This record gives sequence, structure tokens and C-alpha cells, in this order.
Amino acid sequence: MKAWQFTEVDVPLTLSDVETPAPAANEIVVHVKAAGLCHSDVGFIDGTLTPLLGFHPITLGHEIAGIVSAVGSDVTEFTVGQRVGIPATIEDGPGTEKNGGFAEEVAVLAKLVVPLPEHVPFDQAAAATDAGLTSYHAVKVQGRVSEGMKVGIIGLGGLGSLGAQAALALGAKLYVAEKNEKVHDYARSLGAVGVSTDIEDFKDDQLDVIVDFAGYGTTTDGAIKTLRRGGRIVQVGLARATGTLDLQTLTLNEIELVGSQAGTKQDLVEVLELIEQGKLKSRITEIGFDEIGDGVGKLQRGEVIGRLVAVFG
Amino acid sequence: MKAWQFTEVDVPLTLSDVETPAPAANEIVVHVKAAGLCHSDVGFIDGTLTPLLGFHPITLGHEIAGIVSAVGSDVTEFTVGQRVGIPATIEDGPGTEKNGGFAEEVAVLAKLVVPLPEHVPFDQAAAATDAGLTSYHAVKVQGRVSEGMKVGIIGLGGLGSLGAQAALALGAKLYVAEKNEKVHDYARSLGAVGVSTDIEDFKDDQLDVIVDFAGYGTTTDGAIKTLRRGGRIVQVGLARATGTLDLQTLTLNEIELVGSQAGTKQDLVEVLELIEQGKLKSRITEIGFDEIGDGVGKLQRGEVIGRLVAVFG
Repeated sequence: MKAWQFTEVDVPLTLSDVETPAPAANEIVVHVKAAGLCHSDVGFIDGTLTPLLGFHPITLGHEIAGIVSAVGSDVTEFTVGQRVGIPATIEDGPGTEKNGGFAEEVAVLAKLVVPLPEHVPFDQAAAATDAGLTSYHAVKVQGRVSEGMKVGIIGLGGLGSLGAQAALALGAKLYVAEKNEKVHDYARSLGAVGVSTDIEDFKDDQLDVIVDFAGYGTTTDGAIKTLRRGGRIVQVGLARATGTLDLQTLTLNEIELVGSQAGTKQDLVEVLELIEQGKLKSRITEIGFDEIGDGVGKLQRGEVIGRLVAVFG
Repeated sequence: MKAWQFTEVDVPLTLSDVETPAPAANEIVVHVKAAGLCHSDVGFIDGTLTPLLGFHPITLGHEIAGIVSAVGSDVTEFTVGQRVGIPATIEDGPGTEKNGGFAEEVAVLAKLVVPLPEHVPFDQAAAATDAGLTSYHAVKVQGRVSEGMKVGIIGLGGLGSLGAQAALALGAKLYVAEKNEKVHDYARSLGAVGVSTDIEDFKDDQLDVIVDFAGYGTTTDGAIKTLRRGGRIVQVGLARATGTLDLQTLTLNEIELVGSQAGTKQDLVEVLELIEQGKLKSRITEIGFDEIGDGVGKLQRGEVIGRLVAVFG
């Protein structure tokens, strides 16, 4: 079968002929219907994230949805023909430590896999396995957002727009801070009650939680100055590695600042349920299987709006 | 009766003759047996904290223990002769919004007051009402320290040494980072299993919680770099108002940073119980009532070891 493989640093993905995988006893094989392209794929190629790869040449693609095509001898929880998604993970993950989803078929440990609800399309499922997972984990698990809370979202890009929808789905009142004013109408269309370029404009609104998908340090500091006493900041974005923060306000107002990194299988189950209910949707640019190599280049050059998902199979 | 009063900024406390208070319906009057001197008293006099005072001239003294001498008509929970402590608080607090405990008698809202366990001496009770409360709140409430946790304490001064004892009393394993090596033997005598000048020396120890009683910003950053994944930092000290932090490590390791400010009446009840059990003890320098004016000057000049408590009555 054909597969897009990483060979070495700074060399574009190569379309190669590889063997079709057979499942080990604890694995299933998934016939890939959609595979998302991710900024991490850029990092695997440009050297910054390459050490995370298990070996190379390796087939990339870690945002995978498809149909079970073969089942290992010890696997009881899946059957051929079932629709599934694979949560993005580094450990034992396809596209990182194992051959991934930029191919017709991918083998994966059955314990990692999640069944898809009936009406979730493959492209949305693929986007949910990484961006959806990460933004939901930030809002629900690390942010502890619940019904009636006032929630600020900083940065309404790919992750941020999913985080905003997750907050609304959990019953929160949404406030959006986004420098790019072109996105403000989109924020209002989602249902934001407050939209601004600067989170500090919501100082009088007594926000309970702020999730920072930008991560300029200044955004974290602005969140500290904005939250109600005892409020909570979730740090997801990392545009800068360090930030100078107002620790006096953090201390005297008993603010909590907590990091959020990726998500869990359970997070994906819950995100898929929100998609099934029509409460969460990724903005997707679709490409075909043959365009995956070019697509990574477009990501690298910042030419993509929304998530880039290859739909094939 | 005699009372040490604040009159105006930069004027030392004045020993004045004032009227002995009578209790309002919801108040009790406490015959003061011990009153702690606090760095906040220096701040009330030098102008930095003066706006917090309810009026002036005002009798200072907000770390108070004594014996109930009169009871308001609506008060049922206290009787004359009972030993009590008053948790330090700004709102309606003696020594901040009301006349305080640098006097023979002090009136206080009954709902603020806590009975003293049988064997807690007045000087220890007075020190517990502010430093004890604050350090316990940081370790127990904001730090969520419990049995078996590995807890780092940064700064083994007045608050830090109480925080260290609270952590041990809660069943934690104690690690102390303190720049002043003269205090290291004291740290070991408390029961610390690790003692160093730098919190980052405990990187291999997988600490669960670090409570920063110093607050130089660099100490918070060192704590981020030291904790286990998912660990928790409590910020209490504020030697610097801002700090430049490693937000990348905080995010990728899902570290929590939370502020801690003062404490509650319930915290004081629990601290007094630890003192009663012999598990927590303040280092106290005792002075007499007549020395309170001088004592504030000594605090201002940094000449005091441990808590300074006036014992009288």
C-alpha cells in the first residue's frame, strides 16, 4: 500500500510503497477514512519534535478515523466494519512511536481506540482526536468548567474555537479575547456574550475561569489581573516559553494557574459525544490522500485556515 | 485603661488613656493576656497599609488571646472567664477596622472568636491567630497536603517554620530550601528529610507540593522546575511583586500554581488543635505591655527572631 513517510530531518514526506499491516494479537487494523495534518507533523520534519518519533523511515499521521478492517486474536471489544477514532498519543501512538495514518491501513493497540458515535463524520472525528481532545481537556478537566460559569477564552484559533464551543456546551457564559478582529463576528456567532482584543476588558465581569490558548506570557498576566478572587487560569498555548507574571495579585486573590497538555481517551469519548449532539464542530479544510505531502508544507507556511484533514479510503 | 494607639503616618505608637470598652449586643469583651506584634503593624504606621485601618487614632494589635471579661446581651456561645483567641481579619477585625489588642480590654464580634483548647498557652495562641493561621491555610487548604505527600517548603522564617510543622503534622515528608544555612540544623531538628539552599536540588525527589514562603519569583520558577508532573505550588511570600516563570514546563507538566492569603476561623481551630497536641509551636520573643511601642520599632529594623508577643494582663 501507499504511505507518506518521514525519512530524515528537513526532507519532505515521501510517498512510499510499504507492506499492508497485519494485526498483532492485541491490535486492530483500521482502514483510514480521514487523517488530520498537525503542526506536530511540521515539527517532526523540521527537527524540533523529531526525537519523539519511534524510528524512521516512519509513516506519519496521528489524527486518525476509519473503519476496523482486521482484529487481533486477543481483541474482543472491536469487530470488522466498526467506525473508530484513535486519540492522539505519543506512547505507542500511530504516527509517533508506530507507523501512522497517512496510509490506507494502520495497526494500533486495541486499548487505545474509541468507537465513533453514529452520526460523527470521519473528518470531524479525525480533527477531534488531537485538537478536540486538547481543547476539551483544557476546558473541562483542567479548567473544571461547569454550568453557569463565566469563562474567558484567549485566542480563537483552531484550539481556541474548539475550547470556546466546549465551554458553551458545558453551559458556560463565553467571553472571547482575540487580537484578530476579523474573527470577532465568528466569536459572536458562536454565542460569546463578550468579545474584545484584550482579556483585561473583562475585569468587571468577574470571570471564573480563563483558558489561554495563545500563551504570550502577557496573556497569562492579563488573565491574573482579570479573574475574580479564587478564579482559575488554564495555560495551553505556548507562543512564549516564559512570562513575567503579577504574583502579588495571584497571591492576594488566591488565583490558580494550571497547565494543560493533550488529553485522554475519556476526553475523546466526551468530545465525540458533543460532536454527535451538534455542539462542537471543527473548521476543516479537506484535501485528498495525494495532497498530504504538499499539505504539510502549507501548514509550515501558515497557509491553512482551520484544521487540515486528508479524506480518503 | 491604657492603649497603644496609631495616630498618624510615621509617628510611633502612642500610649494613651482610653475608655474601657463595653460589649455591644453581639460582642464580647476580652481581657487581653497576650498580643502579637506583626509586620502589618509596621505597615500601618509607615503608610503602606494605613488605608486598611478603619479610623484613627486607633488601638492596634490584631493577634489576640485572652479571657472573656464581658458578654453582650445576644451572645450565648461564650461565658465570662472563658479562654479565647481572635483570628486576625481585616473586616470588623480588632486592630484593623476596630480598636485592637494592645490594650487591657478589647471588644470583638462574638462570631469571630474561637475558644482555646485547655493546654494552649496565651502567647502561642496569640501567635497562632495570624502567622499560624496563614501558614496552615497555605499548607492544608491551598496546598491540599495530606498523609504521605512529599512537601517542599521554601523559606524557613516565621511563617515557613510553622508551615513546615503543619506539613509534618499532616503526615507529609518534609524538604526545606532555605538560603540561610544557619537555619539548616533547625530544619533537620524539625524532621526534614532533605535540606538545601536551593529547591531545585530536590528535582529527583518527585515533590507533590511546594509552598513558597519567600516569593522572589526565582523561587516560584525553581518550584515549577522541581515538582513532579501534576504537582502544586502555593505562593505565600511576596518578596517581589512579579516573577518570570517557565510557563512551558508549567504547561507540559500540568503544574498548578495557586496563591494563598491569610486564613479562616476554621483554620485557626485546626491550628490550635495542633498546638494542643504538641505538633506545632511558634518561636516567640516575649516582651511586656510597656515595651509594645519599642517592639514595633525593633520589628521595623529587623531585630526580632521569631514572633514578637507582648504578654500582660
